[in-house]
Amino acid sequence: MVQNISKPARERLIQLARLLEHIENDSCSVITSSEIQKRTGWSSFTIRRDISLLESECSTKAGYDIAALRKAICSELGITNAEKKCCIVGLGNLGSALIGFNFGKSFKIVAGFDSNVNRTETLTADFPLYTTSRMQQIIQQEGIEYAILAVPEKVAQETATKLAVSGIKGIVNFSSAILSVEGGTIVENISVVDALQKLVSVTQGN
Amino acid sequence: MVQNISKPARERLIQLARLLEHIENDSCSVITSSEIQKRTGWSSFTIRRDISLLESECSTKAGYDIAALRKAICSELGITNAEKKCCIVGLGNLGSALIGFNFGKSFKIVAGFDSNVNRTETLTADFPLYTTSRMQQIIQQEGIEYAILAVPEKVAQETATKLAVSGIKGIVNFSSAILSVEGGTIVENISVVDALQKLVSVTQGN
Repeated sequence: MVQNISKPARERLIQLARLLEHIENDSCSVITSSEIQKRTGWSSFTIRRDISLLESECSTKAGYDIAALRKAICSELGITNAEKKCCIVGLGNLGSALIGFNFGKSFKIVAGFDSNVNRTETLTADFPLYTTSRMQQIIQQEGIEYAILAVPEKVAQETATKLAVSGIKGIVNFSSAILSVEGGTIVENISVVDALQKLVSVTQGN
Repeated sequence: MVQNISKPARERLIQLARLLEHIENDSCSVITSSEIQKRTGWSSFTIRRDISLLESECSTKAGYDIAALRKAICSELGITNAEKKCCIVGLGNLGSALIGFNFGKSFKIVAGFDSNVNRTETLTADFPLYTTSRMQQIIQQEGIEYAILAVPEKVAQETATKLAVSGIKGIVNFSSAILSVEGGTIVENISVVDALQKLVSVTQGN
C-alpha cells in the first residue's frame, strides 16, 4: 500500500487531505484537479497522478468527491482520527512555543519534558510537565507514541536514543542535529535552515 | 544540474552537507559511506547513489574527501556562504521563538514584521522589527530574498501574496495554510502536524 507511494507524493497527499478537510467545512462536495492546482501550485498532472495511486475510485463527472477522496487518502496513508499520544521534549523558546499550538484531531500532547526543573515548574500547559529524568517512565506509563524533539543540538542524539529505548515510534526532530536512532524508531527532520537551503537550491539564478 | 536531482536526494544532500561541516570542524578528512550510514540512518546504497549524482569526483581509496564532498554538494545545489537576507513575518509564539535562533553562516535575518505594534515595540532582537504595513517597502529597500512565514492561518495566504509581490524568492511556511503563490515565488512548508502524519504513515502497524 503506502510502500508504493513515493515520499514526495505522500507529502503532497498528506497536505491535500488537510486542504480537503478545510474545504469540506466550507460545504463544497466536489473539487477538480485544476481547482486543487490553483490552491496548491502543484500541476494538474501531478495531482491526477498522485490521486491515481490511491486504490479507491473518487472521481465523478464533475471532479473528485471531496469526502471520498479525503477518506481514500487517510485510509491509504493510515491517517485516522484516533488520537495519537505525543510529547514535547525540550521546553526552550521553540518547545514552549509549541505548548499552545493546535495539533488537530489526530494528535494529543499528553506530556512535556525539560531537564530544567525551573522551566517545568514555571511554564503552564494543559498537560503535565516533567523533568527529563522521568521521561522513560512517563512515556511507557502513558503509552506515548510520538515525540517532538526541541532540545539543544548537543543533547539531541542522546535524548533521541533514550526516546527510542522508551519505545517511541517516531520523532519529529526540530534540533539541528542529524540523528541516528535504532530499533525501528523513525525520524522526521524539521529544520528551518534546511528549508531555506532547499529554497536557495531551487531559486538559484532567479 | 540540480534539476536532475530528485527532491528526496536533494534533501539528503543538504543534510549531508550540514553533517560534513560538523565533522570537518572535528578535523577528520575522510569519511566512508558506512560511517555516513551510521550517522544518518540512510543506507550505504542510497548515500553512494546520491553522491554519484554530483559532477565532481570526491572519493579516495579510504572514503570520501570530506572537504571536497561538501564543496561538491554546495556547488551542485547552489549553497554558498554568501549571506542571504531573510525576514521573519509574524512574531507570535513561534516567530518570536525564532528571533534568537542560529541561522548559520548562509542566512541573515535582517527584519521582523508583525501587524501588532505592541509586539514590534516590546520584543527585542538583533535586527529591526516593523509593522506589517511597511513590509513591501523594507523588503525592497533591504533586498530581502527569503521570508519565514509564522502568521496565523487565516492571514497566511494574503501575507504570502504580498511577499510574492514584494519580490521575495522563497517562503518557508510555518503556518498550517496551504499557500498558492504566483510569479515564481517558491514555498517550502514546515508543519509539525504534517511531520507527525508522515511518521504515522510510515510507522502504522508497527
